[in-house]
Amino acid sequence: MKKELLKKIIKKIFIRHKLNSKHASICANALINAELVNAKAHGISRLKMYCDRIKKKVINPKPKIKIKKISPSISQINANNSIGFVAADIGIKQAIKNAKKTGIGLVGIKNSGHYGLSSYYAEQAVEKNLIVFCFTNAPPAIAPHGAKKKLFGTNPICFGTPTSSKIPFILDTSVSVINRGKIRVAAKTGKKIPPGVALDKFGRPTTDAKKALAGVQLPIAGFRGSGLAWMVDILSGVLTGGNHGGKVKDPFDDFSGPQNIGHLFIVLKPNLFVGNYNQRIKENIKRIKKLPKVKGVKEILYPGQSKFYRYKKNLNKKINISPNVAKDLKKLNA
Amino acid sequence: MKKELLKKIIKKIFIRHKLNSKHASICANALINAELVNAKAHGISRLKMYCDRIKKKVINPKPKIKIKKISPSISQINANNSIGFVAADIGIKQAIKNAKKTGIGLVGIKNSGHYGLSSYYAEQAVEKNLIVFCFTNAPPAIAPHGAKKKLFGTNPICFGTPTSSKIPFILDTSVSVINRGKIRVAAKTGKKIPPGVALDKFGRPTTDAKKALAGVQLPIAGFRGSGLAWMVDILSGVLTGGNHGGKVKDPFDDFSGPQNIGHLFIVLKPNLFVGNYNQRIKENIKRIKKLPKVKGVKEILYPGQSKFYRYKKNLNKKINISPNVAKDLKKLNA
Repeated sequence: MKKELLKKIIKKIFIRHKLNSKHASICANALINAELVNAKAHGISRLKMYCDRIKKKVINPKPKIKIKKISPSISQINANNSIGFVAADIGIKQAIKNAKKTGIGLVGIKNSGHYGLSSYYAEQAVEKNLIVFCFTNAPPAIAPHGAKKKLFGTNPICFGTPTSSKIPFILDTSVSVINRGKIRVAAKTGKKIPPGVALDKFGRPTTDAKKALAGVQLPIAGFRGSGLAWMVDILSGVLTGGNHGGKVKDPFDDFSGPQNIGHLFIVLKPNLFVGNYNQRIKENIKRIKKLPKVKGVKEILYPGQSKFYRYKKNLNKKINISPNVAKDLKKLNA
Repeated sequence: MKKELLKKIIKKIFIRHKLNSKHASICANALINAELVNAKAHGISRLKMYCDRIKKKVINPKPKIKIKKISPSISQINANNSIGFVAADIGIKQAIKNAKKTGIGLVGIKNSGHYGLSSYYAEQAVEKNLIVFCFTNAPPAIAPHGAKKKLFGTNPICFGTPTSSKIPFILDTSVSVINRGKIRVAAKTGKKIPPGVALDKFGRPTTDAKKALAGVQLPIAGFRGSGLAWMVDILSGVLTGGNHGGKVKDPFDDFSGPQNIGHLFIVLKPNLFVGNYNQRIKENIKRIKKLPKVKGVKEILYPGQSKFYRYKKNLNKKINISPNVAKDLKKLNA
């Protein structure tokens, strides 16, 4: 389906679910963006879930989002159980504003929900020539080091910076070996997952995606990855006032209340300490790209580069919709 | 040797190498701390290297360190090629001051050198009931993903938070599979390193510590660890005005000029968004510690906990000095 048409349909579906036109647009744009970068697990496969949560009154389609000024640099947002896209969109714009004014912007968001790709918000800051961190927590997926029960979300660490080229540097890495969304897609399509990625519910290694979803995902690098996941839970949950310590509900399976996910955005001006940041980062990337390459590697890519190429490549192509998702879409649009 | 005596000797050695008494104390304290937490690779095994660099005029023993106020939250420090300990000590204290005043403190440091353990500075902020990030870059050790030549340092990510108990949460993780210092100690003592940690200079896997030092270390989790190392290089080097992109000199092998390492400290008040952070973090840790444990695990530890236990255990014991280091110490103290 053409992306313009798909966007129109998604927007219409959200408006039917009581979102105002502006909020529906924000959500449609975020979902289309996920499709365009091939992050299918954050794309329209989630649309039905969002609508279900609105129907069951665990997402508030008409949130009264409050922005509280803590200082010229620091703002707090109470998202009033809005859909995560809307809270994050308002949050990153506020962090950008604070950074432009004072050099550094810090925004803590509570009572939010799943917001899709962190990179989508990081890109907004980088477009304004700013450096950015985005943190969010997520429902339990990873076992803390030493535990056999999942508790941490896949808790991405996201960092972005301008590069002086049109392709931003956006690192957006979950601290699980692979993204939970990829396991979810594998489970839906009946594909196997690689070994070393997850344990089943009895703590045994598995390559069965469904068993992995019922079990635990493994963090990258043992205690190091476990520590990074814990850090993200503290920054996005404990610090902001959001849920934390395993209390974020799974959006697909648990309709007993709102998710109350927390997000934390930190935004910096790049020229705080040097007059020529863009020149310096250009030089940095140039030096690294010039290194001798491992056999078979044509180009050393910086984080975000291959995502940008995927986006460009997909921009004028039709968006591929799986039969399952097409069925959902038809029902929701009926 | 008793730590009080060892400290006296180290201080005397630094004063002989032209540091003033206050700076010599800062350095001695940092080295003793590394010994007490069993981080031998950051302890007195480095003393001779620091003295050599002073003698060869690539560390400035009498630096004129300039602190420039960018805003009430943000300061820049030009360390004037001081020994890293001194620059970092001044830097973390400034970041703490800024955070206490405005809620958030950001300090960028350039023209510094190797500062030892990031956790040592993070602990200072946490002692003042603050949340902290410490970033520093380091000489080339890790190959970027896709490259066969080392360029990134082991570039630690360090995050600390108060816990409401006397044991701070301090994550201090290098983005290499193991610390370079550990490989260095293995090379000195003739021990093997685990497989999967490093490649030799021809790009072949090796367990020989000396060959690993001549080759490249592997980042955790492939492109994810490589991306995190790149992020730390940008934050500590590109942003601050320090060296970056593989230009930080090896302190042991390269006396052709100062290291010009960069550090970045971010410090936050924990109660910016919630009134009861300490209660919340206590609850967070409690929930995680209560999880069912993997067979053989007695307690789920948070980052920094085992380091704290090592410190406590070593506090009243003599510090073990290897014959090689004892020889260095004797010469420097002669």
